Order: sequence, then structure tokens, then C-alpha cells
Amino acid sequence: MRLATLDDGSRDGRLIVVADDAAHYAPAPVTTLQAALEDWSALTTVTEFPEPLDPARLHAPLPRAWQWLDGSAFASHGELMDKVFGITPLKTDKPLMYQGTSDRFYGPNEDVRFPDEAFGIDFEGEFGVITDFVPMGTSAADAMAHIRLVVQINDWSLRVLAGPEMKTGFGWVQAKPPCSMAPFAVTPDELGEAWRDGRVCADLLVDWNGKRFGAANGAPMGHGFHELVAHAALTRDLVAGTVIGSGTVSNANYREIGSSCIAERRGIEIVDEGAPRTPFMAFGDTVRLEGRLPDGRSPFGVIEQKVVKA
Amino acid sequence: MRLATLDDGSRDGRLIVVADDAAHYAPAPVTTLQAALEDWSALTTVTEFPEPLDPARLHAPLPRAWQWLDGSAFASHGELMDKVFGITPLKTDKPLMYQGTSDRFYGPNEDVRFPDEAFGIDFEGEFGVITDFVPMGTSAADAMAHIRLVVQINDWSLRVLAGPEMKTGFGWVQAKPPCSMAPFAVTPDELGEAWRDGRVCADLLVDWNGKRFGAANGAPMGHGFHELVAHAALTRDLVAGTVIGSGTVSNANYREIGSSCIAERRGIEIVDEGAPRTPFMAFGDTVRLEGRLPDGRSPFGVIEQKVVKA
Repeated sequence: MRLATLDDGSRDGRLIVVADDAAHYAPAPVTTLQAALEDWSALTTVTEFPEPLDPARLHAPLPRAWQWLDGSAFASHGELMDKVFGITPLKTDKPLMYQGTSDRFYGPNEDVRFPDEAFGIDFEGEFGVITDFVPMGTSAADAMAHIRLVVQINDWSLRVLAGPEMKTGFGWVQAKPPCSMAPFAVTPDELGEAWRDGRVCADLLVDWNGKRFGAANGAPMGHGFHELVAHAALTRDLVAGTVIGSGTVSNANYREIGSSCIAERRGIEIVDEGAPRTPFMAFGDTVRLEGRLPDGRSPFGVIEQKVVKA
Repeated sequence: MRLATLDDGSRDGRLIVVADDAAHYAPAPVTTLQAALEDWSALTTVTEFPEPLDPARLHAPLPRAWQWLDGSAFASHGELMDKVFGITPLKTDKPLMYQGTSDRFYGPNEDVRFPDEAFGIDFEGEFGVITDFVPMGTSAADAMAHIRLVVQINDWSLRVLAGPEMKTGFGWVQAKPPCSMAPFAVTPDELGEAWRDGRVCADLLVDWNGKRFGAANGAPMGHGFHELVAHAALTRDLVAGTVIGSGTVSNANYREIGSSCIAERRGIEIVDEGAPRTPFMAFGDTVRLEGRLPDGRSPFGVIEQKVVKA
């Protein structure tokens, strides 16, 4: 099933079920995605899609969430970021994770407001999952069944603020303003063979100002999403509608396939040339993110946004 | 004005206005505290308090929030915690802050469930504020007017998990399960002279298993709450109902007046005796927190809870 949320003037929008052609929809049997996640059985199958879909009316599928926990599950991303920040963090076998702002997710085509270019505006292309209620202590094996939806996220980051915040040990607040979500949230079965071992084995195509910047694949996560869910649920119940992110999608052959964020390319430049060369984003810049399956489908649709001065 | 939330079977409860005697109430003109924070002008004055108040029916005043940002604004706490964790974090003039779980706040007398004593169960007595909508970029001076309510919080912490999480630079997820809130949220004017420069100048009386453990005063915050609000709002709009915490209340004369968390006492023991001696909490232990003004009043009421096995 492919779900989206139409802007109907209400804060949480109107949940819809989207047809395979991504051009038609039916109203969902439940009004909002939050309500569906609280009672998944109420989301009965829809087979007729009579309404034409206007992409300009699409919110983030979950316009706000009670909880957003972002991982950093790609080893090659972590290694490059350590170069960028000049740090040697504790090595751990556990997933890395922080809690970020979740009271709003930008829709796929909303302009994104930042106060100052000097903060180091960067995109971060990620995949994510949305869970139903997960009881405290749920194992990774049991967590798999709590993954109701898979999403595509741009985790906006302000890199100049990020290094100092990380070095306090408290993690990020100022460096992590709200994220954006691609228009369609899909059940894992929609991904077919590309949903494997809790990983989204799709290429994440990233274009900055119309030019290809990266095409990393989601397969080589160090921990699968089910393991991230279990990590988060060790000491808390996870509220229905918890969104959990993969962290920036990154592959070890980043020199060939590029990166899903600017900071990573700057890390490569530090390694190769001794100093970063690529600037961060400027006001007016655009970024486009599209996850693509091996069979050519784009299940999540496209995020395409412009950064603007707040 | 003193506000509380009655458990009426609904998830967000029923907002009430509490009389000075803390024994009577009137239903508030707005149904929930979240709704009141979204439209503060709707919360008109109440002068008659006809209903007898049953303390056993009290939720946290805000049973769930879209955002909880916790500071660490007391220097003596930070210094002792560095001893506990064996770290030398970056020194910064900016407030320290992380985002924690906010989809539930425990009520003042709810049992608190933890999976394992071995995680190092600790209380953290704090004061906090709740804001209305704060636009991105709001200055500290302007932030003062956005502080609508002052609250008292127990920020439950799992210390054995906290050190390693801090050393990753990502901050805390597993180490920070949901917090508890004292029954009454008060407008700053209720504190009289004890609300000064964005600080709650009240003693926080902490009793562990019926024995006085600490009585630190909220005055010596390194940054006032208005500065914490402005820090949080640098790169994001703060959603109405954002809760911001002071971090563990701590005073430089901790050897005389005690501490608001166990970890701090263990830090003192490391300094004085070379190793920590006081254990963390055991299942069945209780903790009681009561903020007391110089005139003897307890505006927030009392948190008194037992920790139990999940």
C-alpha cells in the first residue's frame, strides 16, 4: 500500500491511498496517518482510485510525529564525518542515534527556511521507517513486524553548528532543524526484493542544483531498521508514529557513486586534498532526492526543494 | 494561575484551574493544556473553584508534548558529571541542550517502569518552562514573554547507559526514558520574587526513600530559561507546548545542601574518596521532589514515585 497526506486545510491533512500510477487516489478508510498507525487494522484495502492526484497538494505523509529518532547506520558516512569534525568518537557496536525535532516535517516541495548561510546548510538523503506502538524491550526480530511504513527523508543539517554541539556530548539541537519527507509512505511489501534484512536496497539519487551529486544504495547499513527500532525501544515504549532514520545513505565506493550530503564530499576532499573545497548550500539552491528500485520504480516519489532566507 | 490536568479517561485529560488552597478547582475555559498554549488568550480568568480536587486523579499537567529540550544550566552539576563519566567535553559559552522523549510525561504519582536495575536508575530534580509558539530567531529578551508556565520535573536517567552514549557525540536516547512532571504548572507571576531573571529561585527538596538527599536552589543557573528558549529557537520555530528543562538543580555548596541526583553524589565521592560509594536506585525505591519558595509555599505540588520492574 502506498499512502500520502493531502493538504485539506487541517493540520494533519487527509490520509489517502495512492494508485500504482501515482496519478490517482482514494480517501483512506482512516482520516490521518497518525490514527492509522494507532490502529493499523482499520486501514482496510482499497481497490478503486477514482480521484486525480494533484502533487502540489501533498504534505509530508506524516506532517508531524511524536518522535523522530535518527540513526547513523552507514559506516562510510561516519568515517568521513569524523574527518569533517576532526573527532575520534567512541567506537561502539550499538547503533548511533539521536532524537530530533518532529513537530513538523516539511512537505516534499516546500521551501525550507534558514536564518543564515553561514551555518553551513547541508542536505542529508536518508531512508526511514515509521512504526506502530512498540513495547519497551522488543527484540530486533520482533521489531520487524512493527515497521509499518518506509519513507524517504531529507535530514537538513547545519554543519557549522554541528561539530561544536557534538563535542559537548549532548548531540544536536541547533544543527538539526526540521526534516523533509518524500510524498509517499509505503508498506515494506511495496519494495519487493529491495526490502531485505530491514534495509532499503534502493539507489538514492541526489541532485544539487540540477546536477547529479550522489547515487548511494541503502543496502550496506551496519544495522537494519529492525535493529534500530529495538535499540530505541530498550528503555522506552515507542509511541505509534515513531519515525526512525537510517542516517545519510553512504557507500564505501563514494568516489565513484558520490554522496548523499555535502559534508561527506568535504570529508573526501580533506582526505584527498588536505582541505574541503565544496561550499555548503546558498539561498536559492535546490536539492532533489529520489529513491529508485532496481526495476526502475520510485516508490517514495521525489523531494525537490529550495532553500530560502528565513 | 495554577493549572493541572485531570485524568478524565481521554489521552490529554481535562485542563483545570486550581485554587490557592490546592484542594479545589474549576474546569478551565479551554479543554486541554496543549490547546491553551496554542491560544493563550482563550484562557480567561477563573475566580470560583467549586470542585473538590482529588490529587489521585492528577496527570502530568502536559501529559504529552511535541517537544522536550533539556538543558544543563548548573555549572556545579556539569563539573561533577564530568568526573562521573570521566570525560573532558568541549567548553562552550552556549547553553548545553539535548532533545528527549516527550510523547509521554509520567504523572506525579505514577509508578515508573524500568527494565533493569543494572542500567543505573537515577532521578534528576529540575525546574522547567513551557512556551507558546516561539518564532525562529527570537532573542532571549523577547523569549521571556513566551514562557507561559513554570513546572517541576524529574528527568529519569539511566547512568550506566549515559556515559557511552555521550561519548558517541550523539547524546542520549537509551539513557533518557520519559520524565515525570509535578501536578501543577504555574504562570511565572505565581512565583512572585522567586521568578528572577528567568530563574526559579526556589529550593528543590529531594527525598530518596524518605530521607533528605538534597535541597539545592534554582537561582544559580548559568543561563536563564529565556536564554535556553532563545538557544533552542535559533534555527527552528518552537511549537506551542515546547517544554524546556534547566538540567539537574545544583549548587556549588553541594557538600552542605546535597544533590538533586545520585550521580552527582557519586561524583563528589570520586573527588573525595577516589571512587563512588552510593548505589543507584533499586526496584521498590521511592523519590519525592518538592520545590519550595522562601515564603514556604510549594507552587508545583509534589512528585512522589516508586520505581518498579517493567
